[in-house]
Amino acid sequence: MSNILYDFGSGRSDPSTFPVAALQQAATKVLAEQATEMTQYPGNLGHPGLRKVMAEREANREGVQVDPDHLILTNGSMQGVTLSAEALQGDRGDPILVEEYSYPGTLGAYRSLGFDMVGIPLDEGGMSPDHVEAELARLHKQGRKPRFIYTISTYQNPTGFVMPLERRKRIIDLAKHYEVPIIEDNCYADVHYEGPLAPSFYAIDDSPDIIYLCSLSKILAPGLRLGYIYAKPPMLEKILARRHDAGSNYFAAAVTAEFYKDGIDEHAQFANPVLKEKRDRTLQGLSEHLGDLCLWSEPVGGLFIWVRLPDDVDRKHLWNLSQQAGVAFLPGVSFHYQKRNVPYLRLAFGHLTLEQISAGLPILADCVRRARTSNEARQFTSLFENA
Amino acid sequence: MSNILYDFGSGRSDPSTFPVAALQQAATKVLAEQATEMTQYPGNLGHPGLRKVMAEREANREGVQVDPDHLILTNGSMQGVTLSAEALQGDRGDPILVEEYSYPGTLGAYRSLGFDMVGIPLDEGGMSPDHVEAELARLHKQGRKPRFIYTISTYQNPTGFVMPLERRKRIIDLAKHYEVPIIEDNCYADVHYEGPLAPSFYAIDDSPDIIYLCSLSKILAPGLRLGYIYAKPPMLEKILARRHDAGSNYFAAAVTAEFYKDGIDEHAQFANPVLKEKRDRTLQGLSEHLGDLCLWSEPVGGLFIWVRLPDDVDRKHLWNLSQQAGVAFLPGVSFHYQKRNVPYLRLAFGHLTLEQISAGLPILADCVRRARTSNEARQFTSLFENA
Repeated sequence: MSNILYDFGSGRSDPSTFPVAALQQAATKVLAEQATEMTQYPGNLGHPGLRKVMAEREANREGVQVDPDHLILTNGSMQGVTLSAEALQGDRGDPILVEEYSYPGTLGAYRSLGFDMVGIPLDEGGMSPDHVEAELARLHKQGRKPRFIYTISTYQNPTGFVMPLERRKRIIDLAKHYEVPIIEDNCYADVHYEGPLAPSFYAIDDSPDIIYLCSLSKILAPGLRLGYIYAKPPMLEKILARRHDAGSNYFAAAVTAEFYKDGIDEHAQFANPVLKEKRDRTLQGLSEHLGDLCLWSEPVGGLFIWVRLPDDVDRKHLWNLSQQAGVAFLPGVSFHYQKRNVPYLRLAFGHLTLEQISAGLPILADCVRRARTSNEARQFTSLFENA
Repeated sequence: MSNILYDFGSGRSDPSTFPVAALQQAATKVLAEQATEMTQYPGNLGHPGLRKVMAEREANREGVQVDPDHLILTNGSMQGVTLSAEALQGDRGDPILVEEYSYPGTLGAYRSLGFDMVGIPLDEGGMSPDHVEAELARLHKQGRKPRFIYTISTYQNPTGFVMPLERRKRIIDLAKHYEVPIIEDNCYADVHYEGPLAPSFYAIDDSPDIIYLCSLSKILAPGLRLGYIYAKPPMLEKILARRHDAGSNYFAAAVTAEFYKDGIDEHAQFANPVLKEKRDRTLQGLSEHLGDLCLWSEPVGGLFIWVRLPDDVDRKHLWNLSQQAGVAFLPGVSFHYQKRNVPYLRLAFGHLTLEQISAGLPILADCVRRARTSNEARQFTSLFENA
């Protein structure tokens, strides 16, 4: 990967909006003021100040009360993914419901934990509730109870779509009927560009069987490794009972709490427009260079665009051509719950410069054209058709 | 716990030697210089600079080469405890060998993971190899293979003793004979006061089935949540395959790497004498106030003293009296692998002031005397006798 000039592969935040000076001030302050706390263990929930700021973040976005003592700080949202799954785990081979295309890190963790993943088809509204219902009924008939449903319902990774309210409600009803917990991963929360959003599952229904995961990796920086689980008792205790790492990073949490002491809005309002411009530039480049061949998502938030390739693209050839040309992306196969080699790719735009985006997309488009094995016109009319 | 004035309970580092100014400088520098890295994921191994410094720390202490790419940075050594156990886990109920008295955090993690813990008696040389041999033979006869042996061989927690070289060699031989991995937890490493030490297991034998855990919680501060696993391939890959948290805290690691860029010695040589004085003061207080009734360990490093109580102490009464008198400690039951209520208590001295130590011990001694149910003379002549 040493000669990759246009890395659309990894989902990082934007280095240009990383608040160096403010974090320097915050670090200097908390090291002086919280030296004694730094020499203690942070406890299972973690830094009280950051939990308070994150509870306010949630309350402001969702319009409901959030108790800071129901937040568990984690090593990024990925520790939340693993910890919540471990807390709900039964026997190896127990089924869980996941989106057919999902975050590779989560899929890898669930594979490693031995879950039998049941993939639910996606469309422009996210996870299909008809398929959720059918799979829950089928598994119930077989006497196999899913341990949980995992969904990235807002700016779904990789597809970018937001699940509408009515669909969320229906999935909650189905989960309650079959007594299956829901894990909602909202790790792209507040990386929002335009238009209305749907509320989080926990804001729709206060069942303790709804677990919520969030992160600071996307609105601030992944290197801080700060995320959290929001869970109500008795689920809260069940998750804490599975935790054995003596708590999350107090230092990073204290610095971040100081940085965000007046809320997350100021930095988000500075960083999000920068990301929005990159999203727009990526969409523009796709239109100009692949408009006749591909379809893609137009996400209202998050860091990714999901691109449907023509069926006649030799995807192995495309990968090799792109690598040679210095362009990276993540192929569809990475996101499929059964690693099926589907005709998609995901473009991440968060950490690239506008110039890199503008220069990289025509090169990628050229590789797509060169990897085609026919000259036929595009065969599909929607992003999720016949994939 | 709000009126506890003399907290001998928790194993923390010393706030007075926490290097505020140096860490402030380090934080300011790395935030400026590594902003781009901060917006990336740190990878499964973690910050290369901190791994390099920690590999040198190990090499200097043990006199062997340590490859930084065989170090996995973790969220304190407790993530190392859990991750290595998960990597070696088979079925729930599989046996493992642990010291009869061990760190409660580890015991809790192993209980939660469903291991069947087999407790090995301890003496002034740590885990007894005769009992290790007997248990390995017994389990082998039953067709039950232990998943691993876990040992805190240096400044054993809670007993404080260091396992001699010959005993380490014998345990390695036994482990090899029965093909059982060893997990050595050296989390108090380099908190050393006087006299020679024994080498770590990995420095005695380069088998990939020896896993080594270490930490910065004791020599620097637990709030940084930095530890590491040292494991050679193929064990290294086996452990990494079980990791799903997207890597350890890059920010804390970068700051600490900068702070320690010339090695750990300078700060250790400043902090250890301060701790040694507290150990000495604690031993002196015990002699003065409990010399006729109790016996205790005299550790050459680490943060704890293990105190044998007279058998006639009503331990529940002692707990209540101490709490009322504002003195905290951890009772023996916390450390027993089967939670047996053994006649011991552990005193941690790292974070107390000398004045607190001097004032707290006579109060504790008074509680011990008041909790006795007889006036008999001490019935035991060694720390581990008839417990």
